[in-house]
Amino acid sequence: MINDPDCIFCKIVAGDIPCFKLYEDDATIAFMDINPVNPGHALIVHKAHHKDLFEIPADNIASVTLSAQKVAKAVQTTLKPAGMNLLQCNGSAAKQSVMHFHMHVIPRHIEDGLTMNWELVQGDLDKIGALAERIRGIM
Amino acid sequence: MINDPDCIFCKIVAGDIPCFKLYEDDATIAFMDINPVNPGHALIVHKAHHKDLFEIPADNIASVTLSAQKVAKAVQTTLKPAGMNLLQCNGSAAKQSVMHFHMHVIPRHIEDGLTMNWELVQGDLDKIGALAERIRGIM
Repeated sequence: MINDPDCIFCKIVAGDIPCFKLYEDDATIAFMDINPVNPGHALIVHKAHHKDLFEIPADNIASVTLSAQKVAKAVQTTLKPAGMNLLQCNGSAAKQSVMHFHMHVIPRHIEDGLTMNWELVQGDLDKIGALAERIRGIM
Repeated sequence: MINDPDCIFCKIVAGDIPCFKLYEDDATIAFMDINPVNPGHALIVHKAHHKDLFEIPADNIASVTLSAQKVAKAVQTTLKPAGMNLLQCNGSAAKQSVMHFHMHVIPRHIEDGLTMNWELVQGDLDKIGALAERIRGIM
């Protein structure tokens, strides 16, 4: 496993930083985004550190995407949003904020006005934790 | 192979509707979006028809994502954008416009102001075709 001691997602993978975990398997871990653009916003990362879409091995992308599908289905069942996006960001113009390949699961509401580059605003951690428990409960 | 006779992407897969093809393998096909939000905007679909993230088999998602990585690398090498997104849309609120699971490869420019729900505006087909040839040439 490749890890970067300065990477926040590697620290989450190692358990050195807490997260609201939704799912974990041998290759990946999924947890709530604490800066959600909508309730239920989740992140899926591979446990090995690779910067972005251009550096991550193909097998690792496949693992992340399959976990993203599982999480998206659980979020959909829990919240029944009117839409859902998978989004993966690379580089400054796409506002990649953590340099460890990750996939966003983003529930959508009709005309929620989301942009591709959002400001990071921390959500209510109690509410995020309670929602994580509901989502995790059906995975 | 599952196909829907009324689906525009199934018609592209079958060769009944032309496209600016970038890549093809046994499972997937990639082609230029003729309504690009930025130059180099491409789409990757599985050849089998499945509506969205909730219905497509996991193996098919993995195939699409791996082809998306190949296409994204070729677009990156060709255009050298400042960022790149993979985006996958499900349902009305996420403005899924074709009901056949597909992944967008979207090159990004600094402060291009993209939203998650864009209006479909057809691009200059001659320019899109010329760009497709450049991208295809390095794949």
